[in-house]
Amino acid sequence: MTHQLESIPPIDYQQLIETIYHETKHLAQLGKVADYIPALARVNPDLFGLSVVTQEGKLHYAGDHEVPFSIQSVSKLFTFTLAFSHLGSSIWNRLDREPSGTSFNSLIQLEYEHGIPRNPFINAGAIVVADLLLDLCKDPLESLLSFIQELSGNNQVNYNEDVAESERLTGHRNFALAHFMKSFRNIHNPVEKVLDIYFHQCAIEMNTDSLAQSVSFLVHNGINPLNGKTVLNPSQAKRLKALMLTTGLYNESGDFAFRVGMPAKSGVGGGIVALIPDVLSIAGFSPALNEKGNSIACIEAMERFTTYSGKSIF
Amino acid sequence: MTHQLESIPPIDYQQLIETIYHETKHLAQLGKVADYIPALARVNPDLFGLSVVTQEGKLHYAGDHEVPFSIQSVSKLFTFTLAFSHLGSSIWNRLDREPSGTSFNSLIQLEYEHGIPRNPFINAGAIVVADLLLDLCKDPLESLLSFIQELSGNNQVNYNEDVAESERLTGHRNFALAHFMKSFRNIHNPVEKVLDIYFHQCAIEMNTDSLAQSVSFLVHNGINPLNGKTVLNPSQAKRLKALMLTTGLYNESGDFAFRVGMPAKSGVGGGIVALIPDVLSIAGFSPALNEKGNSIACIEAMERFTTYSGKSIF
Amino acid sequence: MTHQLESIPPIDYQQLIETIYHETKHLAQLGKVADYIPALARVNPDLFGLSVVTQEGKLHYAGDHEVPFSIQSVSKLFTFTLAFSHLGSSIWNRLDREPSGTSFNSLIQLEYEHGIPRNPFINAGAIVVADLLLDLCKDPLESLLSFIQELSGNNQVNYNEDVAESERLTGHRNFALAHFMKSFRNIHNPVEKVLDIYFHQCAIEMNTDSLAQSVSFLVHNGINPLNGKTVLNPSQAKRLKALMLTTGLYNESGDFAFRVGMPAKSGVGGGIVALIPDVLSIAGFSPALNEKGNSIACIEAMERFTTYSGKSIF
Amino acid sequence: MTHQLESIPPIDYQQLIETIYHETKHLAQLGKVADYIPALARVNPDLFGLSVVTQEGKLHYAGDHEVPFSIQSVSKLFTFTLAFSHLGSSIWNRLDREPSGTSFNSLIQLEYEHGIPRNPFINAGAIVVADLLLDLCKDPLESLLSFIQELSGNNQVNYNEDVAESERLTGHRNFALAHFMKSFRNIHNPVEKVLDIYFHQCAIEMNTDSLAQSVSFLVHNGINPLNGKTVLNPSQAKRLKALMLTTGLYNESGDFAFRVGMPAKSGVGGGIVALIPDVLSIAGFSPALNEKGNSIACIEAMERFTTYSGKSIF
Repeated sequence: MTHQLESIPPIDYQQLIETIYHETKHLAQLGKVADYIPALARVNPDLFGLSVVTQEGKLHYAGDHEVPFSIQSVSKLFTFTLAFSHLGSSIWNRLDREPSGTSFNSLIQLEYEHGIPRNPFINAGAIVVADLLLDLCKDPLESLLSFIQELSGNNQVNYNEDVAESERLTGHRNFALAHFMKSFRNIHNPVEKVLDIYFHQCAIEMNTDSLAQSVSFLVHNGINPLNGKTVLNPSQAKRLKALMLTTGLYNESGDFAFRVGMPAKSGVGGGIVALIPDVLSIAGFSPALNEKGNSIACIEAMERFTTYSGKSIF
Repeated sequence: MTHQLESIPPIDYQQLIETIYHETKHLAQLGKVADYIPALARVNPDLFGLSVVTQEGKLHYAGDHEVPFSIQSVSKLFTFTLAFSHLGSSIWNRLDREPSGTSFNSLIQLEYEHGIPRNPFINAGAIVVADLLLDLCKDPLESLLSFIQELSGNNQVNYNEDVAESERLTGHRNFALAHFMKSFRNIHNPVEKVLDIYFHQCAIEMNTDSLAQSVSFLVHNGINPLNGKTVLNPSQAKRLKALMLTTGLYNESGDFAFRVGMPAKSGVGGGIVALIPDVLSIAGFSPALNEKGNSIACIEAMERFTTYSGKSIF
Repeated sequence: MTHQLESIPPIDYQQLIETIYHETKHLAQLGKVADYIPALARVNPDLFGLSVVTQEGKLHYAGDHEVPFSIQSVSKLFTFTLAFSHLGSSIWNRLDREPSGTSFNSLIQLEYEHGIPRNPFINAGAIVVADLLLDLCKDPLESLLSFIQELSGNNQVNYNEDVAESERLTGHRNFALAHFMKSFRNIHNPVEKVLDIYFHQCAIEMNTDSLAQSVSFLVHNGINPLNGKTVLNPSQAKRLKALMLTTGLYNESGDFAFRVGMPAKSGVGGGIVALIPDVLSIAGFSPALNEKGNSIACIEAMERFTTYSGKSIF
Repeated sequence: MTHQLESIPPIDYQQLIETIYHETKHLAQLGKVADYIPALARVNPDLFGLSVVTQEGKLHYAGDHEVPFSIQSVSKLFTFTLAFSHLGSSIWNRLDREPSGTSFNSLIQLEYEHGIPRNPFINAGAIVVADLLLDLCKDPLESLLSFIQELSGNNQVNYNEDVAESERLTGHRNFALAHFMKSFRNIHNPVEKVLDIYFHQCAIEMNTDSLAQSVSFLVHNGINPLNGKTVLNPSQAKRLKALMLTTGLYNESGDFAFRVGMPAKSGVGGGIVALIPDVLSIAGFSPALNEKGNSIACIEAMERFTTYSGKSIF
């Protein structure tokens, strides 16, 4: 740290996210709400919430920060963390950790690479993680929920069974991925059981306050600040953040790193969660998506957040 | 920053890199020196140098830190910076900024994406940058050399004409890439002229001291600390560092981010340069490569560097 | 026809296939019996049968011509013919008719081509045909069996339920293909029902005598010579033979056309059936396969057949 | 042959092609003349010629059968025949013989298959053949011209130097293919020399009368009927015809076999040549192309030819 930087007055995060909230709210009109299942298609596209949890544990927010939404692929962050905390580096026998360069549900790369998913944050990777959880936990859905409730400090976080059922009914591509990997022997449990985990994790609902809190353990080098428990060791936490940066937003990861500069994870429910190590975590929710499946208003809000605050990992 | 972290005594970087140098030197035996041109094949595989330049401008080193080597693809960092400083974001009309997911010289993705390279750090992207430099500079090779000499503070940095000529004679894949992009109208100058720039940039020689110094402007948010000149503005510097993290080591970028956690750029000459913003830059040179074309000993040394020091961008 | 050709004495097909049988029998040792299901893995690799049915309806044979075997993908010829006879050219709304250039169970091309299979003789195409039969026939399995029994003049042709069940238990790749096409809305019925047809058709058993007879309708321009009924009109018959020539042996089709020069269809059970319009049909069975999944001894026998007889479509 | 067929009166080919000429002439308006070089873009799109040469050597024609045109990729048939007649089956060390499944100038498959072209009738394959001719002939362009003049019985067949030069100036994709294969060591001579052959062969000009005559050797099982010389032995001739059927019209080969049922070769100049063994050869010329680069009117004319005459290879 140089002398000049130290003399800068502390940033007023509450005012900052309110400013950004008002500047970027209208952007939702440029996108399109996910409509592959009715439960998502019905979501009000005008909803927009932002929450920040600082390293000291202070919560700041703007807009619809208390409205629960379907976290969808953001859940891949939690299932992976849970499996990684059990398995450590042996998890890489079943998964790779490189950017995919292709869409979130592509089978092409999976065929060239003999059923080993590129990373845990594309659908194929998350399905392998679900398969691992079936071996690791007696009741994976129960374990996963407790895990997220503990991270977020919110006992109300829960599965939306209607959404889970809708996911199952329309999830032909995910069935294809799971059966395809099973043909390469990279899924060990029955496909129906594995996808039951997967469709439920997509249907977890929480608000931006809880979501921002739930990744505080990555701000704190692997330790959950709410209870002092070690979720991941420092090396694992570093690695997970690297993975989020390079692969957290599907094939828009490079662009997000480029524009925003924070490790992050997104979902087609319109949520994005991101963080700066030792500084803060931030969560956004706005259902209107760009053509790569990421929330338009949230990306813009987070780009302004790192630009205005001068803080990012770079 | 918390109180606890501030009370940690300052790291002795000189001792740290000496320790790491001795721990990792033997790893060179696991790799294979690039042999596609005689000039590279002849390099002594036992050479190993490490240099660190801190934010304050202090130089630390170990091993063969004064031996010049062929920087090869590390030069893509300099040509891109030079073009980016002239063109700003309009450069993205000709290039994308996503991880490629494939090998450094693949034509497959280029065909699917109609001649637009995935990023400036794969061969195709660097060839487009060379084409841009031909339009931007009266004498691109002269401009590039001055640029690197100024960044590194070393007037001895120069082209090795024998290497450049060898690159040309064996560069069939690069000729293919350039003609292929020209068929998509994404190369504007004659292929021979464009590749003359490209083959020369690969043949630039410098040592690890100079290489570590030459990226100090990225430690300093875009400003060359040697002369106070702005190379890139802070936003551009942030973006370039993000690009290095997601794409700097070809299709090993994700793994390097994961293991090491620093923005970096590598070359088949055995060099890697990396940095932590506001903290330091580091360069390594060891000619023996893994199967993805990156220096085995340098990657291991840098992983230990971030692990032992507890410093990385994550 | 020139005078010289007319003066050639008629070919003694019985002697010809006996000669070829003895010349090629040992080749089975170069291949490998399909082992993905136990029922196929157990087949005696030394079995080898050849049957010819001439245009006049004369049957010639050698070896194990009366041993029933699992026709596997040869069944795609019958399901396609049945659907084509009902739908005519409207069938091409759901299928293409180009060589695939890739392996029989690849998903890659299917993704690039949005769920439309390249042709009816790769797995994806046959699964679409099964889906069509579910819409066309009240009891597709019953209709298919009657159809084949009528073509072959053999009421003993039947499904092997053990094989069908084994196919289902190991058919992860086919489940993946079906779900994948369903995600593109190119499968209309439930995947389980569609694949039940598909796994049963693979499990049809017949011998080479019956198999050679069953394609006599293609020797006779679309008319079943056993009962005079029109199976396909002449234009449809021509088109089906063209399709067999360009796509009947997966990505070995070009090579088979090149070496043998007859429209044909193969299966991993070791069967191949082929024909020369207006001249004869020929069926072979030898379980040992090459790496492309086609019977080694049968291909060699058929190449000798067209070379020795001087007859082919070219 | 059945009794019924033998009693059919001989076909009046002259009347048949006149009828078809008038029925299909207007179809040229549905296509688009190749415009990648000025010399082709300037061709009158209303030109339409058809010529048939029967097994007995009788010539029939309609329309612009005497207007020379640029045969473009049809020349691949002649260069391959010339090289195949010298090398026999050893030619397959450098080339494969399977349908490509992709566009005529794709590099994708070439990368997956390590620089071995799928077949001699895509650009990459023809470039390898040109490389072979450089090793086989003292003066390849002279040898090729003599060869075609002898096959067609027309000494006026010649190169159009303006077209050859235009091909060179716009041939970036072909330069890319050649350099790419050279990087896999599947081009032995300098790229410039190889492509000089290739660009010249594309620039050969002849009319449909000569073109139909020039493939008569394939109607006659490999023997040039004009002089009795053996061009290919019967086995080679059979194989070449199979190759034409499966790969002669790029990725429209399957469809052409399906609709027309004759071995054929097309070019973007608007020419197509096809044949029925022991019966006749046919050539057409109409410059307007479909989106796969084949002449619309010629394909339709040939489909009607086989449908009306009831003659095809199937």
